[in-house]
Amino acid sequence: MTQASIITIGDELLIGQVIDTNSAWMAQQLNIAGIMVIRRVAVGDAWDEIWKALNEESKHADIVLITGGLGPTSDDITKPLLNKYFNGNLVVDEGALQNVKYIFEKVLNRPLLVSNLKQAEVPDTCKVIQNKRGTAPGMWFEKAGKVFVSMPGVPYEMKGMMNDYVIPELCTHFIFPHITHRTLLTAGIGESFLAEKIKDFEKSLPVQIKLAYLPNYGMVRLRLSAVGFDRIAVEKEIQAYFDTLQQLVKEFLVTNLDEPMEKITGKLLIARNKTVSTAESCTGGYIAHLLTSISGSSAFYVGSVVSYSYKTKEDLLNVSKSVLEIKGAVSEEVVIQMAKGALSTIQSDYVIAVSGIMGPDGGLPDKPVGTVWIAVGNKNNIQAQKLHFRFDRERNTQLTATNALNMLRKFILADAVANT
Amino acid sequence: MTQASIITIGDELLIGQVIDTNSAWMAQQLNIAGIMVIRRVAVGDAWDEIWKALNEESKHADIVLITGGLGPTSDDITKPLLNKYFNGNLVVDEGALQNVKYIFEKVLNRPLLVSNLKQAEVPDTCKVIQNKRGTAPGMWFEKAGKVFVSMPGVPYEMKGMMNDYVIPELCTHFIFPHITHRTLLTAGIGESFLAEKIKDFEKSLPVQIKLAYLPNYGMVRLRLSAVGFDRIAVEKEIQAYFDTLQQLVKEFLVTNLDEPMEKITGKLLIARNKTVSTAESCTGGYIAHLLTSISGSSAFYVGSVVSYSYKTKEDLLNVSKSVLEIKGAVSEEVVIQMAKGALSTIQSDYVIAVSGIMGPDGGLPDKPVGTVWIAVGNKNNIQAQKLHFRFDRERNTQLTATNALNMLRKFILADAVANT
Repeated sequence: MTQASIITIGDELLIGQVIDTNSAWMAQQLNIAGIMVIRRVAVGDAWDEIWKALNEESKHADIVLITGGLGPTSDDITKPLLNKYFNGNLVVDEGALQNVKYIFEKVLNRPLLVSNLKQAEVPDTCKVIQNKRGTAPGMWFEKAGKVFVSMPGVPYEMKGMMNDYVIPELCTHFIFPHITHRTLLTAGIGESFLAEKIKDFEKSLPVQIKLAYLPNYGMVRLRLSAVGFDRIAVEKEIQAYFDTLQQLVKEFLVTNLDEPMEKITGKLLIARNKTVSTAESCTGGYIAHLLTSISGSSAFYVGSVVSYSYKTKEDLLNVSKSVLEIKGAVSEEVVIQMAKGALSTIQSDYVIAVSGIMGPDGGLPDKPVGTVWIAVGNKNNIQAQKLHFRFDRERNTQLTATNALNMLRKFILADAVANT
Repeated sequence: MTQASIITIGDELLIGQVIDTNSAWMAQQLNIAGIMVIRRVAVGDAWDEIWKALNEESKHADIVLITGGLGPTSDDITKPLLNKYFNGNLVVDEGALQNVKYIFEKVLNRPLLVSNLKQAEVPDTCKVIQNKRGTAPGMWFEKAGKVFVSMPGVPYEMKGMMNDYVIPELCTHFIFPHITHRTLLTAGIGESFLAEKIKDFEKSLPVQIKLAYLPNYGMVRLRLSAVGFDRIAVEKEIQAYFDTLQQLVKEFLVTNLDEPMEKITGKLLIARNKTVSTAESCTGGYIAHLLTSISGSSAFYVGSVVSYSYKTKEDLLNVSKSVLEIKGAVSEEVVIQMAKGALSTIQSDYVIAVSGIMGPDGGLPDKPVGTVWIAVGNKNNIQAQKLHFRFDRERNTQLTATNALNMLRKFILADAVANT
């Protein structure tokens, strides 16, 4: 089976200044095309380290994809290194030159510098990959039956090249098997209990089908993966096992698609032609952000009031001043009033309201950091629930949002049953 | 100099199902402690690949940090592998056993399963690292002068172990040099122009000081890094170069700290004892989320109206229906009315309002995808600006938020000058 390795280059990766999102995306795309990624390596802007990584990765992988180090500044050494590694000479590529000129003259409206013109130089031992989104061209090398592709580290430039050229071109070079996955999401059951519940199923799996547990946000995803050259047979076999798996975990099943909770809830709203609004205190707009990160969310999402002060809760959500003073902002009474307030001012079918203490500061003896009240409902019925998380601010916020969206999902499903 | 390598384990990393945030965080912490990370490698839950990675990484690195593959389910093979790699026998660790029992009985309120008890087993060739945040213990091995540390892949468990035990313990094992960085952020100048501007400075840098360019969100960060055993001398030398660099780029300088834009703007508001509110259409709560991701943000952030429909803009922000109909939601008039509406209903000193088309759908001939109107101001003065981004929904949203926060920052600075 054809194997790929991904090398990401940049000191910023080794001092942790940036999180590498490129290689996850690349791995996804390769996987969809039927290419197995066996390793991902990050190295600094250091000649010997890059050279060594090229040697080592190409020992085991048929395809080596490289990102980063192609900028116009002196810390970017990938291009001269690849030129030497593949015994080439740097020459100006006419297409890349026109592209650099076009971007500076038409898009950026800035004069060209010598350093920019240098970006149009490429080793004469590569095929040039045009960059429609930036100035640095990509490079395709071949050596001893192995393919090496160098792309910029800027994510949208790399993604464009992968989609437009690299993946299609790889598919003409190699014959790939079919790789397929099925993922489902469970809630309300721990990883080890789930494993106990499906242990006979797990034992029954043939070698070509793998099961993985992916716990996150207090929920567990289960993923089946299969590989084979007969696409139809592979799909049929994995689907049969996946159907069985869904049956085994049905009481905890949230979705049988690999989708985030905001998408699951959003699709449910669209299917029922309903809308939702949010009233957010502690999550500070994060639930609104998750819902609106879905393209087309205006079909089901109306708006939010982020009320980060008592006064905003009173003025925009009609929360009673005396209730705020007596019960505090993090209370069942306030979160219910926030939900009702949002329903009446924003006018949606459903509502989510949250109020809590995300930390690290703001904890009280009776309301420690991580205490959250969540309310979901509609004009007939509001349900509130208190949860407690014990993590840092970022994770507490994510957990609150995911749980709130799941509470709404369950409310909508129950609501539909009640109305039939 | 002591060098470290990070190995992350898990099939989910190789099919791109999750983004690896662990290794960036670990690299940061190691770097602060004076440990240079030379490589990061991700491998799947595959015996041979993990074994090979242990061999290869320990060839060059003095410290090998490993995360992942320690869960209670059968796809987690890191522990038996390490047991064999270091010629041990699995034995129950009493401390780890008590911890597993405590978590199940007191925290999770669930009965223990055999698979959970197995988590208390460790190779007798390791020092056990207690996990205060989960059930899987960490393991510290030593072999031929090299240190290998295995930790869970769950970020908050790994972070706890690193802070509580691994970093302090490494500092007693090795003598580390002092590594230090200085980062500044520029706006309004491209990477190659910046390089041209500071090329003499760059040439003048001694070998022990490195300069890096980190372009992002239409802005460029410049980072100086220095390393040496004399802490005071290293700090003094880098500071002198950093002072020079700041002078050279002063007209484009946003901050001389390595902080995100929301923090820079938040600190400015706190310093001036002022508040801000937001009225968000296209960014859907993302600006609110960025501002509230800062602990203590209630000192300067009051709230937001996320108005994702015409009606919400009219009802909550007093945007005129006729202006919406004539000019459209993405217009100078509407974004100014949104800003004024938020100022009057939320009552803050300053306001940010945004309305735009983030894509991929919703573009119009005269307002293509990526068109954004941003308004910032106070009760005396609102300034609006039209921007155009040409990326995907996620990046367009990030760019809009960062630019809006920078516009507010500049407005506050100019406002302060006008009032003195």
